Amino acid sequence: MSEHIVSRFDEELKDLARRIAEMGGLAERQVDHAMTALTRLDTTLARSVIDDDRRLDLLQHEAEEMAILTIARRQPMAMDLREIVGAIRISNDLERVGDLAKNIAKRVIALEGQFQSPKLLRGVEHIAELSLAQLKNVLDAYATRDLEQATEVRDRDGEVDAMYTSLFRELLTYMMEDPRNIGFCAHLLFCAKNIERIGDHATNIAETVHYVVTGELQLDERVKQDASSTTTVAFEG
Amino acid sequence: MSEHIVSRFDEELKDLARRIAEMGGLAERQVDHAMTALTRLDTTLARSVIDDDRRLDLLQHEAEEMAILTIARRQPMAMDLREIVGAIRISNDLERVGDLAKNIAKRVIALEGQFQSPKLLRGVEHIAELSLAQLKNVLDAYATRDLEQATEVRDRDGEVDAMYTSLFRELLTYMMEDPRNIGFCAHLLFCAKNIERIGDHATNIAETVHYVVTGELQLDERVKQDASSTTTVAFEG
Repeated sequence: MSEHIVSRFDEELKDLARRIAEMGGLAERQVDHAMTALTRLDTTLARSVIDDDRRLDLLQHEAEEMAILTIARRQPMAMDLREIVGAIRISNDLERVGDLAKNIAKRVIALEGQFQSPKLLRGVEHIAELSLAQLKNVLDAYATRDLEQATEVRDRDGEVDAMYTSLFRELLTYMMEDPRNIGFCAHLLFCAKNIERIGDHATNIAETVHYVVTGELQLDERVKQDASSTTTVAFEG
Repeated sequence: MSEHIVSRFDEELKDLARRIAEMGGLAERQVDHAMTALTRLDTTLARSVIDDDRRLDLLQHEAEEMAILTIARRQPMAMDLREIVGAIRISNDLERVGDLAKNIAKRVIALEGQFQSPKLLRGVEHIAELSLAQLKNVLDAYATRDLEQATEVRDRDGEVDAMYTSLFRELLTYMMEDPRNIGFCAHLLFCAKNIERIGDHATNIAETVHYVVTGELQLDERVKQDASSTTTVAFEG
């Protein structure tokens, strides 16, 4: 490639990276706001989360288009190709994180005026803190191409899953104790699941960082500790 | 492009299309088997769905890699580029459909030996039939590049969503009527949600067909009728 083309290519890569960074910041903020809206049952904040999701969808489409056009125009070498493929994958994950935050926000609106007991929210807050930390850490790992930090995120996904499994049991127990909790807890079950899935996306991003840096895929190796799909809670009424 | 290169390129496109067709068939079968496993509470079949999901994950990674390399090597024109980008998007959706089928299968295993009433399953069967039909139709639409059929799938997504919202209410009502239903119904809530999301992926694929054929994106237009996230069910105990 001539110097001129190289510098245009570098410009495109930088532009793509900026877009992913913007998406990362926005996704983090959306999750944070959705959780604040949930714990304070703040429907105004919930509505702003719902509205702001469009921005993430748009950025994702733009990032994907930009990435594909860069590949088509520049025929990049393997290392640069990995960078671009990594950007596409991460923008997909961040867009889905945004969808999950939006879904939590929608449930905040559903919960308005329902019977609710603050203790029911405590477990959800807990898992949300961990998932959000995972998301922040993996975005840092991506920004600095820090393989060690990415591996740490991937290794800690089991904690999120284990926390979710125990929360699933806990919420079912509350439902059995007092049927007035059922409506509230059903929505909290989905919020908890959404938060667990945000953790999964953090892990996907960690695997993408690994792929970008090393060129290796990490298929089938992940240890799944989310046992909630196979969890039985006996009725003890 | 020379004739030689053109024919190699056509070969690559056909190869990619074959892989997507294989993924489509497999995803359909996985959803079908997961639902049969659920309605018959057949844990053997459920386990085979869980095992077979790896094949879809692998195919998706291969399709993505093949697509990206084709773009990088051949610098395709706009129309061909859309074909390839479409294939990447559809393979992503199909891989996620497979994950949702796998999650239903996992819940079948959790439901073994639990208190269960067959009437609880009826609504879930119903929505599954519709979602599976949506998936079949959109894969047909993709295979034949049938814009009309794709639009029909997109338009019918509201039916899936509306059915899910009423099923959500119904399952909550069963939980309130008899706390012994809570464990079973909690898993069914997630199964129903998974099925509704399979319908969403069918709609995504319909939008991709539209994009491949026309070059236009269909952002922000979709009418969302899934009101379950904002549905309140009062306790009437």
